This record gives sequence, structure tokens and C-alpha cells, in this order.
Amino acid sequence: MQLICPEWIAPVAPEPRVLAGHAVLVEGDRIAGLMPADQARALHPSAPCTELPGHLLVPGLVNLHTHAPMSLLRGVGDDLPLQAWLEQRIWPLEARLMSPEFVYDGALLACAEMALGGVTCFNDMYFFPEQVAAAASLVGMRAALGIIVIEFPSAYGSGAADYLRKGLELRDRLRDDPLFSFCLAPHAPYTVSDESFTRVARLSGETGMPVHCHLHETAAEIAESEARFGRRPLRRLADLGLLGPELIAVHAVHMDDSDLALLAAHGASVAHCPHSNLKLASGIARTARMRELGINVGIGTDGAASNNRLDLLQEGRTAALLAKGASRDATAWPAHEVLHAMTLGGARALGLADRIGSIEAGKAADLVAVDLSMLQTAPVFDPVSQLVYAAGREQVSEVWIAGQPVVHKRQFAESEVRSRVSEVVGRVRLWHNRISEILPVGPGAGVS
Amino acid sequence: MQLICPEWIAPVAPEPRVLAGHAVLVEGDRIAGLMPADQARALHPSAPCTELPGHLLVPGLVNLHTHAPMSLLRGVGDDLPLQAWLEQRIWPLEARLMSPEFVYDGALLACAEMALGGVTCFNDMYFFPEQVAAAASLVGMRAALGIIVIEFPSAYGSGAADYLRKGLELRDRLRDDPLFSFCLAPHAPYTVSDESFTRVARLSGETGMPVHCHLHETAAEIAESEARFGRRPLRRLADLGLLGPELIAVHAVHMDDSDLALLAAHGASVAHCPHSNLKLASGIARTARMRELGINVGIGTDGAASNNRLDLLQEGRTAALLAKGASRDATAWPAHEVLHAMTLGGARALGLADRIGSIEAGKAADLVAVDLSMLQTAPVFDPVSQLVYAAGREQVSEVWIAGQPVVHKRQFAESEVRSRVSEVVGRVRLWHNRISEILPVGPGAGVS
Repeated sequence: MQLICPEWIAPVAPEPRVLAGHAVLVEGDRIAGLMPADQARALHPSAPCTELPGHLLVPGLVNLHTHAPMSLLRGVGDDLPLQAWLEQRIWPLEARLMSPEFVYDGALLACAEMALGGVTCFNDMYFFPEQVAAAASLVGMRAALGIIVIEFPSAYGSGAADYLRKGLELRDRLRDDPLFSFCLAPHAPYTVSDESFTRVARLSGETGMPVHCHLHETAAEIAESEARFGRRPLRRLADLGLLGPELIAVHAVHMDDSDLALLAAHGASVAHCPHSNLKLASGIARTARMRELGINVGIGTDGAASNNRLDLLQEGRTAALLAKGASRDATAWPAHEVLHAMTLGGARALGLADRIGSIEAGKAADLVAVDLSMLQTAPVFDPVSQLVYAAGREQVSEVWIAGQPVVHKRQFAESEVRSRVSEVVGRVRLWHNRISEILPVGPGAGVS
Repeated sequence: MQLICPEWIAPVAPEPRVLAGHAVLVEGDRIAGLMPADQARALHPSAPCTELPGHLLVPGLVNLHTHAPMSLLRGVGDDLPLQAWLEQRIWPLEARLMSPEFVYDGALLACAEMALGGVTCFNDMYFFPEQVAAAASLVGMRAALGIIVIEFPSAYGSGAADYLRKGLELRDRLRDDPLFSFCLAPHAPYTVSDESFTRVARLSGETGMPVHCHLHETAAEIAESEARFGRRPLRRLADLGLLGPELIAVHAVHMDDSDLALLAAHGASVAHCPHSNLKLASGIARTARMRELGINVGIGTDGAASNNRLDLLQEGRTAALLAKGASRDATAWPAHEVLHAMTLGGARALGLADRIGSIEAGKAADLVAVDLSMLQTAPVFDPVSQLVYAAGREQVSEVWIAGQPVVHKRQFAESEVRSRVSEVVGRVRLWHNRISEILPVGPGAGVS
């Protein structure tokens, strides 16, 4: 048993509030309770206690959509339109670089960035998911691993059927690891066949696995679907049996009223990725309206190639601000509800709401302490408001995942993790050199 | 003479580029030159040299619009519509709190936050500007001080004429301080009379002082002006003689084509404040179009009460992303041009383009080094792109203003500044308590 005694606690559930002078009791990998700190100390006089004056404790942040290994491609395609970004930068590079080593190094870089910034669980979509698992495991992070489904071959496999088979094998292999769960991850309506979608729907129905899919990201995607399939992509997925509470619609930028009504009626979730949607000029998702309709919305960073920060705190801030600005309603998406989306909203989409996403007895002890005593967040009126609108991820000082200290005093708690992360930062320089040799033109205005 | 030898230098002017292996020569408060590092060391073998491997050196960031003292009100009115924010929170609090002490403490908190984040010059609009000057002076920051003009009385003065008189007196008093310049700062079209605007126009014509004014922030402001004056606010200002290269139109959210044509034709500047515009649900400024028309755009944070971060780096990132997302053009406002807006664009608006805003011989040595060796910004393809899209302000490690080291290794270089800033952070807790007593309701969901 250990006690964590921060200045404030925002448990997120059962209701949005801030507790002052309370303690979280952690027993093994679980939260055992939440009570006034004095009472906790009296009940457990010999339990070690982490005192965190000036800190706000929140549930671990859930990054609902990323491609962790793409952090090695951070900044290779800035200021380019989506098609040029994909066709001139991302796809050619991936075709040349794809390998277990590329995926492991990229994923480890991403896990390090995310964990130091308070992300305790991420939902990934990429090739070689066993390498993503290995990187997450090293850092001690929770992950929802994507069983990717896409028609074209890669170094990872020969096509959709092969990817599915490999993904399901990995799921069997990692069955007993409590840090991992799995999503079926059909890439997008424009890269996955009806046949593969139908298999995904059947597998999801049999196993309860969520379905993690890019959807209605651009207007062009919808036009293409109407031309090829005579329907909008969401309607096609509905016809193929994919619309239900398992669906995580990633981006969901171009959603008309009938699309949103469909999502709401079927209890599907949205992974909102505001930075990526802005940066690739896809547009602005109608999140204020989604929330009015009761659609569950979580927040994702997307991959570092299109963001370029795996910073869920900043992503939540942008989500809040953009909802207000785009809907012309300053009360849209208030701070406490943004924190909900960054934690329990993501957990619910992943089918993990009974295990993570809030600070409640019985849930896994995935906890993040943010130092609000810095001048950049002074004064503190509502700590949750300061977290969402003012704090930077560098103010994350402590992170526990399943009760284990992962980050302590802004560094990785374990020396083994610190040295492995240092090593990967060294290898990133080698990847940089290799990428620079492949890329036909230097990015940006170039280096003289 | 001293040398600064970072890994990369982005001088911003005379053209956008990145120099590797170069040094900046600083003599006293000025930049003496820019040349290959080997050559600089050979020419000045005894000059001290600051080696900054892995760092990008850029011109000091210019915050083109803020109300520094309002940092004491950070978070008191989150998630409220503009009118409720003003009428229920900001104005009642300001009416009770306004004093030299409130302004000094708030400005010092703001200057500390800004300087640590790489802002070397800020354009301020508030009461008691002599207190803002004192706070900036303590930290060693450059400031454009606003000579506020507003019709209603305050603890600072009895009304527009009194404010003008006091502001002009302060300008005379600080005439010999090279860190300070002045702007005439009529608050907004809805709070300033034709008579006062006319005086401002005459004074600007006589002195060349820029005119710093909130303009077309909300649709309501325009409707009110049309009802009261039969014209849009910008047209009214034009008729009063205020439209010219001296005008800094702050916010400029609701600008139709004829408004933008007026701004462009007269060489006026825009202070773009994307976070504030989103947070108060004012809307999204048409920055991509402004840039097409050749309008000079700088970036401002606005005050901490409506942002809530005085973080110009994040503000520039949001400006870039929002321009792309809102215009549906991923090539809008590329990284190098965002850096230009955050530096030389702001300097030009303030009439200081011959003194600051770029790393060129003869300009003041206002310089910022950003540590791009952290894993959060790895790998580095184009350092400017990483600065704009990936770096956080916590990666600012060194700041010089007029050749003086202000920030060194992420801390204030002078112990005197460190202790004064610590003291003010302590006093902010007292202000917090006083504000909490005045505020009729606690912000957000409250603290149990």
C-alpha cells in the first residue's frame, strides 16, 4: 500500500470536481481508495506517502489515435498538402525504411515523449505492432495495439489477410499482459476492401475488439467513396456492419448532420485530432455539435509526421479552443469536460472504461501529477482550468502506470529506461542521416 | 566582443534560411556580424564564445499584443462568453484591484513568463504603464509601452485626456532608455470617442508613434459601430485619420474584403492573437488572405486572462495551423514565414524594424537559443520547422536582450532577478486570496 498526497485531485468520475487535501491509496497495480489525506495517513500510518504540494493529480492521459513509429518522420513533410505529403514524403520513405528496427526505434522515441508528457495509454495503428509492444513494454506504458488491415503489401506482410493473421497471433501471444489491449485497425475506407471490412466486422462481433479507422478525414475521401461505392464512407461502413459502440471514427472532420446522427444513434466514438486536421488542412471537426449529440469524443495526437508533437495536453487545449472558436460559443467544451475527453473519453472508446480513465477505487493506478506551482500557471483558481488552458507538458512531474512509477521528478524513474531512451536518441541521428539520403529534396527552406 | 556559436542560426532577414556552423558576433548591445564560426574564432581568438551544440539561434520573439498585468487574472473567467467574461469577471475585479502594486506584480509575473519563453519585446496596453516599465526593466526586457486612451476613469486617471497626459509624461521621462518605445493605445472603437481618436491621430502624425488598438474583434463590435456611427469601425478610424502604416489592428477577426483592402492599401499591420480569439469565441482571423494581400502580420498572446499562456512559440504554432485549417491550404503560412511574423513582423509593426527582429549586423543583440537536442524535437530536418511545429517554450535555454544575458540554462541569469521573481510568485498567492474573496462565484466546477 502506498499513499499519494497532492495538493489537488481531479478524479474525473463519478463527477467532475476537484478535491483538495485528499490522498489516493494505491495497492499493487490498483487504486484502493480516495479519501481525506489525514484519514488516509491515520488508517495507514506505515504506508509510504508521496507528498506533492502544488501538484494536481489526474488520471493518466489516453492518446486515442497515433502512429507511434512515425516519430522518426517528424518534420519531413511540413507545409505540404496531404497528397504531396503522402505521395512525395511519407509513402516513399516508409517503402524504403519499413522494418522491425524502424518501428521499434520510432515507437520508443514516441513512448518516451508521450510518457514524459503524461500519456499513460495510447491507441496505435502501424505495421510490426509487436515492436510497438516491445517499446511500450520497456517504458512501462499501456497500449491498445492496432491489428492493421490495409490491402497493399509491406515489409510486414503481404496484404490484409496476412496482417490480420499476424495481428491475431500477436494478440494471442500477449493475452496475459495486462498493459496491452487490441483494436482492429482497418486503415481507411479508401485503402480497405469490402471483403476485409466484412472480416473486421465479424471479428469485432466475435471478440468485442474496438475498430480503429480513419474516417471522413477529407472532403476528397467522401467524394471518392461516392464515386466508387455510391455512398459516403460512414454509410458504407454501416452497411458492412461496422457501425456500433466498437467503432472509433478517427478525425471525423467532414461529418454532415446525417453522419453525426448515425454516429450518435449507434454509440460510436470519435478520436478528435485537431492539430493534424489543421496542419494537413483537412478542416475543423464539429466537436461542439458532436458533444451536444452525446457522441463520445476522445483526443488523439495522430503521428508525429503530421502534428508534430505527441503532446496530449496541448492537443486537449487546442480541442477546447477550436470548439469555442469554430462554434462561436465560448462555453463550448469547458475545461473539466476536456479533461474527461483526454482520459475517460479515450478509455471508453477503447473499451477500457472499467479499468482506466478515472481515479476511482478498483481501477488501475494510472496517475499523473502536474506541478502547478510554476510561475507559468500562477495563480491557481480552478486547477483543472489551469491544467487545460495554461500548463505545459513539461510541468508533468510524476507518472504512475499500473501502480509503477514511470516518471519521477520529470525523468524516467528507472535507470534502465533512461539509458535505453538515450541510446534510441542516438540512433535517431542515424535514421535522420538515412532519411536525408533518401529524400529527393530537403524540407523547408533548407540548411546552408 | 563575444561570440555565440549555436548549431544553427535562422537570421530571418535578409532572407529566410538556416545557417549551420556559423557564429554571431556581439559587441556591447549590438550584433557586430554573422560569419562561419571558424572564421569568427580566428578573427577574435580572445573573445569569449558561448558554444551551443544542438541549439537553434533565432531573433528574440516579439509579442505584438498583451496586457501584461492581467496575468494576475489568469483563469478567473474561463469558459465564459466575452460579455460575461468582461462584465462579471474582468471589469469588476479590475475596478476593485487597480493600483500600482497590482500592475507591477502582474507585469513582473508576465515578464518572467515571457522572457523564460523567448519573448524579448512585448507591446503592452494597460493602466499604470510606468509600473509595466519598472517590471520590464527589472527583468531586462524590451517593451513598447502603451499610452492608454479610454473614456472611463480608473485608479490610474480620470479619463482619456488624463491618460494621454500621463502617458506622454512617462514617454518624456523614459526617453533615454533604449529598451523602451511607446505606442498610442486607444483601447477600442467602442470605448474611445471621435474626439480622442482625433487627438491620437494628430499625436501619431507628429511623433510617428504607432497606434495600438483592438479592432474588429467581434461581430457585435461592428454591428454596434454601424448603429452608432453608420460605419464599420475600420472605416470610422480611416475617416478620423488613423489608417496608415502606424496602425496596429489587434485581433482583426471580422474583416471583409473591403476591410482587408483598406488595411493593405494603407500599409497597416495586424496583431494576430489566435488563442484569445478562439477562447472568447470571437472567431478565426483570415490570416491566409491577409498574407496574400501583403499585409504585415505579427503575433500576440493577448493578456493571460483570455489565453491563458503568454507563450509566443505556441501562439505562432497555432497561427500556422489555424491558417492552414481555416483556408484549407496546407501550404498557407509555412514555418519560416511564421518565424518572420513572430520576430520581424512584430518589429515592423512597432516601428522597430531597423533595430530588432532579425540577426543582422547593426541590430540590437536580442537573441534566443532553443535546445533542439531534446527527444521531443528529434530528429531535426529543418530546425525552423521543428521550432514552429514541435518545440516547447521550455526548450528555450538562453536569452540575450541588447547583448545582456537575461536567461541562462533556462533560469534568469542574474540572481537579483531570480529572487525578485520568487518574491512576486509569493505575492501572487496573496493576490489569489484577495481575488477569491471578491469573486462572487468560484470558477469552473469549484474545489471541494
